[in-house]
Amino acid sequence: MNATTSTNTSPTTTATASALTPVTVIGLGLMGSALAAALLDAGHPTTVWNRSPEKAKPLADRGAHVAATPQDAVAASGLVIACVLDYDALHTVLDPLAATGALAGKSLVNLTSGSPEQADEMARWAASHGADYLDGGIMTTPPGVGSPEMMFLYSGSEAVFEAHRATLAALGDPLHLGTEPGLASLHDAALLGLMWASFTGWLHGTALVTSEGTSASAEAFTRIALRWLNGAVSGFLTTYAPQVDTARYPGDDATVDVQIAAIDHLIHAARARGIDNALPELLKSTMERTAAAGHGGDSYASVIEVLRAGAQPIHG
Amino acid sequence: MNATTSTNTSPTTTATASALTPVTVIGLGLMGSALAAALLDAGHPTTVWNRSPEKAKPLADRGAHVAATPQDAVAASGLVIACVLDYDALHTVLDPLAATGALAGKSLVNLTSGSPEQADEMARWAASHGADYLDGGIMTTPPGVGSPEMMFLYSGSEAVFEAHRATLAALGDPLHLGTEPGLASLHDAALLGLMWASFTGWLHGTALVTSEGTSASAEAFTRIALRWLNGAVSGFLTTYAPQVDTARYPGDDATVDVQIAAIDHLIHAARARGIDNALPELLKSTMERTAAAGHGGDSYASVIEVLRAGAQPIHG
Repeated sequence: MNATTSTNTSPTTTATASALTPVTVIGLGLMGSALAAALLDAGHPTTVWNRSPEKAKPLADRGAHVAATPQDAVAASGLVIACVLDYDALHTVLDPLAATGALAGKSLVNLTSGSPEQADEMARWAASHGADYLDGGIMTTPPGVGSPEMMFLYSGSEAVFEAHRATLAALGDPLHLGTEPGLASLHDAALLGLMWASFTGWLHGTALVTSEGTSASAEAFTRIALRWLNGAVSGFLTTYAPQVDTARYPGDDATVDVQIAAIDHLIHAARARGIDNALPELLKSTMERTAAAGHGGDSYASVIEVLRAGAQPIHG
Repeated sequence: MNATTSTNTSPTTTATASALTPVTVIGLGLMGSALAAALLDAGHPTTVWNRSPEKAKPLADRGAHVAATPQDAVAASGLVIACVLDYDALHTVLDPLAATGALAGKSLVNLTSGSPEQADEMARWAASHGADYLDGGIMTTPPGVGSPEMMFLYSGSEAVFEAHRATLAALGDPLHLGTEPGLASLHDAALLGLMWASFTGWLHGTALVTSEGTSASAEAFTRIALRWLNGAVSGFLTTYAPQVDTARYPGDDATVDVQIAAIDHLIHAARARGIDNALPELLKSTMERTAAAGHGGDSYASVIEVLRAGAQPIHG
């Protein structure tokens, strides 16, 4: 953030932009608008289109070219970034274009949320219309777009990723996970699952330490919790990851059996304070199933064996 | 770790140690032995006692004085650190001593695992025998003892903590949480709950991205997961903590309703791959209860309202 990013500098921005890749952004919800704004801030000639055109107004004020139709929007740039509500909305916009051959030779970067299977199918669909396809997952909220610390996960065409890496870097740190188009969506879901689990564990702990009669605050507990997450807990994950890859889980430091004994302290303390124990009870039963499967003397990483064996696959 | 910590340097260690506080360690399990070793490494005259005396041998080789009885052990130092199996074991050791007045004037630091109520009761018991009491929680495994990054949480007597802060720093980074003796135990349980929730969320995500047919490894996913935990997720916790303290949960960036929609992607992708979905199903139902309680437009931090209202308190 500095003074040169104000809305009055569009002439300067345009002058700088002439050497940079033109980009089209389709979809101007909160996230699509943040993407377009970051591209404008970086100096890219940016064309935008949205189903309801009033969403384009703030971006037009910052120097975006507002296309009248999806056809015009796609024609304006070799790189097209789509971020709409869902895959149905994406097909509604792109199908008529594709039928006219307008996607041929384009690089399509799809940041719409969906399943790995939808990404795979979209990649095949794009190829059938002559477009190179890169799927993506945005690991931040709209206010975080444009920050180099925030991860943007991509999978699919390596050629598109390499050709446009510098442009994609205007949105956040671009990471290419592999050529399978579904990988970004799969990682997105996995990371959100980790986030919700961590959030809920943190809130349960916060409820516990701030329960009636203690002097603790959520802010003070959270400072300690962040040190814990970013220190010891991260250290365990680093130790456990190769254990998962080799399916060997030596329980040197802390076994599943020891942790089953320890979680009773948590469950008892929370119950005595009237706090919902569904999460620790589930964690305990998962540990108990892991011990019953023969991993009581192994590390916590062996819990993955029970998760993987947990349900019958339902394909499709 | 350096050459001067080898077992051949005990004469040097003893010479350095003469200015440092003498400490007694009671209980030489894996953790108690690690505590005594860290104190010896730091140069403290260290007296140890264990029910089965053979556990003291490696520490004697490193310069520890091995007491023949708990009486002798407590008599040797003004600062007594206890780390035994549980509170029953602690009373078995200390009750006969206390009856003779041997605890009067001692600083008792209890690192035995137990409940906040047990810590409270122990503090009263110690006071009745003339000892100052500090309760503690060790936030690392035995190999991490002695590292200044690892947190040792203390609660209870501020006088004991301040008088012995430098000595306690030999074990790890000492943090005093407040004078209520149960606070360290309560934080210990809360942090372990956060750890188990994070571990399980991470393992679920690892199972997802490494499922059949993908090229991903646990190590590669974990590098991304650590960036995510230590970056965006930590940022959310920092934002949410003051929301919890003020019971106001503005949903600017991501509402509970939006996250309920997003978790279906995770549940569907995991189900299609045969992965146990008990954790994400529980997280989803907790979010749905939060939305039903009127927080659908609020941030995820509002989930704490449902956790706090989750069960009837059972005291005692």
